[in-house]
Amino acid sequence: MSFNTFGRLLRFTTWGESHGPALGAVVDGCPPGLAISEAVIQPFLDARRPGQSKFTTQRQEPDAVRILSGVFEGKTTGTPISLMIENVDQRSKDYSEVAKAYRPGHADYAYDAKYGFRDYRGGGRSSARETAARVAAGAVARLVIPEVAIIGYVAEIGGDAIDLANFDAAEIGNNPFFCPDAKAAARWEKIVDDARLAGSSVGAVVECVATGVPAGWGAPLYAKLDSELAAAMMSINAVKGVEIGDGFAAARLRGEDNADPMRPGEGGPEFLANHAGGIAGGISTGQPVKVRVAFKPTSSILTPVETIDRDGGATEIRTKGRHDPCVGIRGVPVVEAMMALVLADQKLLHRGQCG
Amino acid sequence: MSFNTFGRLLRFTTWGESHGPALGAVVDGCPPGLAISEAVIQPFLDARRPGQSKFTTQRQEPDAVRILSGVFEGKTTGTPISLMIENVDQRSKDYSEVAKAYRPGHADYAYDAKYGFRDYRGGGRSSARETAARVAAGAVARLVIPEVAIIGYVAEIGGDAIDLANFDAAEIGNNPFFCPDAKAAARWEKIVDDARLAGSSVGAVVECVATGVPAGWGAPLYAKLDSELAAAMMSINAVKGVEIGDGFAAARLRGEDNADPMRPGEGGPEFLANHAGGIAGGISTGQPVKVRVAFKPTSSILTPVETIDRDGGATEIRTKGRHDPCVGIRGVPVVEAMMALVLADQKLLHRGQCG
Amino acid sequence: MSFNTFGRLLRFTTWGESHGPALGAVVDGCPPGLAISEAVIQPFLDARRPGQSKFTTQRQEPDAVRILSGVFEGKTTGTPISLMIENVDQRSKDYSEVAKAYRPGHADYAYDAKYGFRDYRGGGRSSARETAARVAAGAVARLVIPEVAIIGYVAEIGGDAIDLANFDAAEIGNNPFFCPDAKAAARWEKIVDDARLAGSSVGAVVECVATGVPAGWGAPLYAKLDSELAAAMMSINAVKGVEIGDGFAAARLRGEDNADPMRPGEGGPEFLANHAGGIAGGISTGQPVKVRVAFKPTSSILTPVETIDRDGGATEIRTKGRHDPCVGIRGVPVVEAMMALVLADQKLLHRGQCG
Amino acid sequence: MSFNTFGRLLRFTTWGESHGPALGAVVDGCPPGLAISEAVIQPFLDARRPGQSKFTTQRQEPDAVRILSGVFEGKTTGTPISLMIENVDQRSKDYSEVAKAYRPGHADYAYDAKYGFRDYRGGGRSSARETAARVAAGAVARLVIPEVAIIGYVAEIGGDAIDLANFDAAEIGNNPFFCPDAKAAARWEKIVDDARLAGSSVGAVVECVATGVPAGWGAPLYAKLDSELAAAMMSINAVKGVEIGDGFAAARLRGEDNADPMRPGEGGPEFLANHAGGIAGGISTGQPVKVRVAFKPTSSILTPVETIDRDGGATEIRTKGRHDPCVGIRGVPVVEAMMALVLADQKLLHRGQCG
Repeated sequence: MSFNTFGRLLRFTTWGESHGPALGAVVDGCPPGLAISEAVIQPFLDARRPGQSKFTTQRQEPDAVRILSGVFEGKTTGTPISLMIENVDQRSKDYSEVAKAYRPGHADYAYDAKYGFRDYRGGGRSSARETAARVAAGAVARLVIPEVAIIGYVAEIGGDAIDLANFDAAEIGNNPFFCPDAKAAARWEKIVDDARLAGSSVGAVVECVATGVPAGWGAPLYAKLDSELAAAMMSINAVKGVEIGDGFAAARLRGEDNADPMRPGEGGPEFLANHAGGIAGGISTGQPVKVRVAFKPTSSILTPVETIDRDGGATEIRTKGRHDPCVGIRGVPVVEAMMALVLADQKLLHRGQCG
Repeated sequence: MSFNTFGRLLRFTTWGESHGPALGAVVDGCPPGLAISEAVIQPFLDARRPGQSKFTTQRQEPDAVRILSGVFEGKTTGTPISLMIENVDQRSKDYSEVAKAYRPGHADYAYDAKYGFRDYRGGGRSSARETAARVAAGAVARLVIPEVAIIGYVAEIGGDAIDLANFDAAEIGNNPFFCPDAKAAARWEKIVDDARLAGSSVGAVVECVATGVPAGWGAPLYAKLDSELAAAMMSINAVKGVEIGDGFAAARLRGEDNADPMRPGEGGPEFLANHAGGIAGGISTGQPVKVRVAFKPTSSILTPVETIDRDGGATEIRTKGRHDPCVGIRGVPVVEAMMALVLADQKLLHRGQCG
Repeated sequence: MSFNTFGRLLRFTTWGESHGPALGAVVDGCPPGLAISEAVIQPFLDARRPGQSKFTTQRQEPDAVRILSGVFEGKTTGTPISLMIENVDQRSKDYSEVAKAYRPGHADYAYDAKYGFRDYRGGGRSSARETAARVAAGAVARLVIPEVAIIGYVAEIGGDAIDLANFDAAEIGNNPFFCPDAKAAARWEKIVDDARLAGSSVGAVVECVATGVPAGWGAPLYAKLDSELAAAMMSINAVKGVEIGDGFAAARLRGEDNADPMRPGEGGPEFLANHAGGIAGGISTGQPVKVRVAFKPTSSILTPVETIDRDGGATEIRTKGRHDPCVGIRGVPVVEAMMALVLADQKLLHRGQCG
Repeated sequence: MSFNTFGRLLRFTTWGESHGPALGAVVDGCPPGLAISEAVIQPFLDARRPGQSKFTTQRQEPDAVRILSGVFEGKTTGTPISLMIENVDQRSKDYSEVAKAYRPGHADYAYDAKYGFRDYRGGGRSSARETAARVAAGAVARLVIPEVAIIGYVAEIGGDAIDLANFDAAEIGNNPFFCPDAKAAARWEKIVDDARLAGSSVGAVVECVATGVPAGWGAPLYAKLDSELAAAMMSINAVKGVEIGDGFAAARLRGEDNADPMRPGEGGPEFLANHAGGIAGGISTGQPVKVRVAFKPTSSILTPVETIDRDGGATEIRTKGRHDPCVGIRGVPVVEAMMALVLADQKLLHRGQCG
């Protein structure tokens, strides 16, 4: 089966392949009257755009978004918003190798097993280019939750983590890694460049924090805020793990160390810790909502890997072409977009049920 | 909002509170003609049942399941299967303290913030007792996927992990921890008992492996097999993290070390590794599907914790009563049930689209 | 496939068969804080209850509803409300004839064709007894829309229609036909009794009007208010047609005769007609929402009908047992319930998107 | 709320307004491997296309469809199929009158009441132009059900019905009314032309029959085949009534006259009548599936109608511009498309659950 729609009240549907004429998203259920234009959406796409440094793929895509519906006189009308991004730089290359053999770690074999054949050009539907459509949809979602500020950043590359003592949000935009720790960013230059030059790749951990989320958003039990975030993040290409708050580290704490004590505060409780990542019982607590996302190293590498061809015969493949040596870096705007989409949906769900 | 239904073709809806008269699940979309009876479901509930050792809550619940619909002459009819479990041991106790003050780490404050009030008896709807209904539904799901074998176990308690060299699946049923490593089980006795006696609690990591899943199950992009598993697992009480395959460890590998090379095998490719946990591009590859789930330490502890009362005033609370010192242990049958439910749903989805 | 859940934010799932131990509904997404008890729901079930006159089936069912979850201290909590009705009068009879041969007009053959076999006792899941669960769910839905008054009635039996000049809403409860026209009710006594005595049956048309619905409810395009009402009504057993406002009669009008002119009124426009039945573009206009529903004559008749048996051989069947000679009569509370459920859902949807 | 997605496994989402740059549909869940191209879809759009006779609107739209995704080497890939149709003939006219005052019978007032404002150009999202996207999606759905033949036609215009004795399917394409009765078509010329010249409009009844549907499709209880068809048809602009089989006429029959007796036939039962319209218990019986749909007269008429303006003041409006004098005529391809979409979805649902 294929399910290319996400969300419950604020829903978006994405479509498109890496090497098709275009890709896009239809955002449905958006409240009416929100000021919007291409200029509001474009900066988020620009942040995700490839080819901006040597640390990401060299494919040159303007990723210019066009609004085709759902907007009138500069405002959302409450009807579906169709967003389209044309593909420009589908370099004409020879895909015969990828067409014939399966790249380990890629979706090649799985797609063939499921559908009988696949659009192999640049990964087709399984390409990370699809995330451009999510980022565009996420920009719409942000308009629904003006009370919320979302900050994403890379917390770790190739096992080398940032030092929280150096955390400076203003730094995130100053380096090609969305890194809030200038010293780590300096180290990562070498790590990523080494991988790139070796035709290898490295993994990364992305963190995303949403502040301003009021207590009460979340739809227990099977659309819990954390459950929806987990689904959203795990649906991103190359993601293999999701943590809320302390995540796996919480499994190593004792109960008293994992508690988030409360005391009276202004306009609600003041929490003395946030091990829970701002979510209890699937509902926001008013604390910052925090998620951590693990990106595996890009599967496209120059080292030859043992594999099979479409006929089941033994062969070997090395993935030439333009690839991100660390796909997690450009994952930051995508993680932020998914956070925005989940929160906006939950806000509407909460308003629907609880008024 | 409240969403108590999970699944797309095979859907289940759970209902019930910790201290209400009963709880249950309605399983809809189950294929017809499957042999079923209460006796088929009960063993899974028995595995999750509390009060079986000193390492779990002492609440005594038979958790006897009753099938109220959807079955005729011992077979599923294709119509909704209603499963009910009566609550028996709702000990009459004084809940006035919990009614007045919020237990940090619990859903108390969040539920109040969302709904304006809450059923505070035993945690109400946010109680882990709800998972009994999932386990019953999961037993039905297993009938849908006879080709799949699911094994869950505790891999780590309080930071103390099993040694894979000692892994013995037959050992899992021999100790009260669902532990496949006899030596670790022996160590955990002390860890959990110490926590219990201290009125504290410890966290755990549960692993679950499904073998026999054919290549091709999964519904990209927003109902990817891994995305659905992440949502399913994160919806379980006390879960804070989910990993597929190597998870966060994959973020520390280089591309060539994370590859799962293939070579020709019988009836499909032979994989030389399984870093991916049996899923690529959101679709099963035919390898074992592997998920890891982090359970935080039980929030109910005897140590007093700073908190606020319903009026916003400062107070302190310690949670008396019957609780699991390590809620992850009884999480094993729940994780297995969610694995079964996701896989059964994906099997039907795949059959629906791809025939 | 089987889909036993209806609704988008306010959702209900029904389960149960005619001759099983019980049937029920789980209502999910209900706003919190609404005063509720069994006593609030029971009167609606009593109105639908069989055995109250010779014009309905003689099966004696108290249809006593029990609330199993979702309510605390007399108020809805926002969590799923489980409602159960035990079956009492499953008369032990010989179903061997129905088991072997297909009753034309019934779902017997279709269920076998779909599922391979069926629970043939009393129609199993396809029995009109399922509608008891809808009526219980509808009683909950009414609490969500206190601003709306819903009145249903039979407008036509066996082709004999009420005279609008005689319409008196107070009359509806005074006769066994939910008939607002005392003269028609008198005529219908003979029509229905004749059919009953002849072992035959007659059809009916039910009308339902909801006043107090504000302008703005409806979810274009594929969950339009009228589209949802059509789906809701057509899902009721024996229903073969649905009209909104003038329905098919509108297809015979010219544009100027079908217009509903507006002029300024207090608190909104005053409409000079209501051909549209209170819905334009799938959205309520503030006028009364009006739906008409056609019920076919009960398929269970004593006249022998040519049919086939399970092995495909020719045979003949006459349906003995207890049946409604005019199933449309008891359809009135069901149509009202579905109206309430759709409106309540649309109210929450509107609030979710538009605040 | 806004729900622009229809379907459960085979889902389509439409977007676009009458006077926006384009409109389209995303079809998700389509099985892989089906031969497709723009040329396969275009004929269905051509049948619906305006401006082909004086009996429909004179707006000139080529309605050329473009496939943007989901197709590779001429076959569906199983991923979402994005279809786009550019608007060409959005005549620049003065909409100030429509912007200020509400056209009775149109969605103008309802949209404003719901969303606070509206895209008034040509009806915006509520325009019948949206149905072009449905027709394109329906063409994809037809590929999923090659065993089914769908024939739609106009059965009645302005109260003048076809004579079944004259029914000739081959005639449907020979006149501008999709009329299977040549004599009726001749009469309708005058009826529709009179209405057109008078600036008035007439209603119509469309019938649609699907043959080749095997027994067993349908998803009881709340996605019954007839319930889904009712929702699908009632979601079409200007539709006010839906009948399955005999519909309201069945409510005037006695049970023995409404029965569809069965006798042994080749490859299944032979039915001696089809009052049920091919559906029993919400499941197809193998007989032709038959639906009747009532279209009201176009609300856009030249006769001035009393109305109010956006400020609530009294005014009067006559709708100039290009309109269909009988919107039901071009409803035929739309009704067929919705029939195809529902049947294709139900086929996949059935295969998913019942294998």
